[in-house]
Amino acid sequence: MRDAPTEDTTTVSYQAQRSAREGCFLALEGVGGSGKSTLAKLLAARLDCPRFHTAPDPLSSLQSFINQQAAALTHLAFYLSGALHVSDLARAALTRGPVIVDRYISSVIANHSATHRISNQDARQMIEPFLDYLARPDLTVYLHTDTAELMRRSRTRTERQGSGRPEMSLDRLRRLQAHFDEVAASDPTAGHVHTDARSPEQIAANVIALLPAHSPQAPHAQPATSHEYQTPSPADSNEAR
Amino acid sequence: MRDAPTEDTTTVSYQAQRSAREGCFLALEGVGGSGKSTLAKLLAARLDCPRFHTAPDPLSSLQSFINQQAAALTHLAFYLSGALHVSDLARAALTRGPVIVDRYISSVIANHSATHRISNQDARQMIEPFLDYLARPDLTVYLHTDTAELMRRSRTRTERQGSGRPEMSLDRLRRLQAHFDEVAASDPTAGHVHTDARSPEQIAANVIALLPAHSPQAPHAQPATSHEYQTPSPADSNEAR
Repeated sequence: MRDAPTEDTTTVSYQAQRSAREGCFLALEGVGGSGKSTLAKLLAARLDCPRFHTAPDPLSSLQSFINQQAAALTHLAFYLSGALHVSDLARAALTRGPVIVDRYISSVIANHSATHRISNQDARQMIEPFLDYLARPDLTVYLHTDTAELMRRSRTRTERQGSGRPEMSLDRLRRLQAHFDEVAASDPTAGHVHTDARSPEQIAANVIALLPAHSPQAPHAQPATSHEYQTPSPADSNEAR
Repeated sequence: MRDAPTEDTTTVSYQAQRSAREGCFLALEGVGGSGKSTLAKLLAARLDCPRFHTAPDPLSSLQSFINQQAAALTHLAFYLSGALHVSDLARAALTRGPVIVDRYISSVIANHSATHRISNQDARQMIEPFLDYLARPDLTVYLHTDTAELMRRSRTRTERQGSGRPEMSLDRLRRLQAHFDEVAASDPTAGHVHTDARSPEQIAANVIALLPAHSPQAPHAQPATSHEYQTPSPADSNEAR
């Protein structure tokens, strides 16, 4: 007889490594066209740190297939796998310094639920057992950009890229914005930055000003923005969500 | 103010289309080297029907990355997305006739949990909210092959493919077999076929003999292998799991 699999197994594989962070974990969120990628590049240069995108390479190679061909639950599970992998990449890099992610779990939930016309809560409930695993950002910056400006940028992108990228409809944009606003409202790590009439450099400075004290300049300081970070060991407190 | 996203949203995207099946849905399961792919090809020719693999194209292009680089939960979410997409492909094809899948959710659970050394139950619990969505096979055939023969096939494959494919260890093989046996034991659609000393043609004949009456020859007959299929409408009964 074979041994029952339960005898020698544990759930240790589902527990994230809890390593001390040597820098801030910053997530950038917002609808398409709000300037996340430009800002992520600028901030990565300023902070001299890596940046990752959700979904990360090589998962990103399937995004257009998933967006165009996959039904709702495939879409959700795929982007969940992307956020989980980014979380592992970030966790490893955070032992060396700050990390920036361009989109993270908030984008997964808001984009998915807006696209497939379900509530954020229903999407979140499906993936709830996975959420505790995700490395928690020290700060999640939600970018806010005027709707007319976002529509203008979407038209410019569509013209530049030909028929490959569908133009954003005003209806879809407003739905996306509403889903992001709702996610942000229940995110204890949320910070908000308005991009209108500001240069990328000004926006980057705004974001840096929001970063908690746990920065590359003060690598062992405790961030003071949330009670959840004020436990004795940063190694034990950073991963909770 | 923007509208709250909950006002105009429903979970309809999370409900599978329930279309009448015009043929059997057959899943093939078993450890690597048990002959699933050969059998799937033979059966697809015999039944003149499509066959899909979990993970399907183009998700399959990332399997080696996921197997080699991804931590446990990324692995699980990725293969879950593969099984969900195969389910959608199968559901669509079943409106035209039989469908064969080479690996399905049982492989996802058994391979994942054996690889990451957790219990099938823990893996299953993580993805529980997604399982109801999966199109239910009319028959899931678990292939059983002698351990020594599986080890021999693994060595042959490794030699043929060079260093790209790691050789199966006896320990890993036994663990995989135990996880598959445990999955099969709680699968109400399970059938069992032993492959030793049988040709692929004989094995295919064994599998066809196990197929319920709901075959291309009798497209509207009700399969009688399970009480769960004996409701008035096949459209309402096939998707439960």
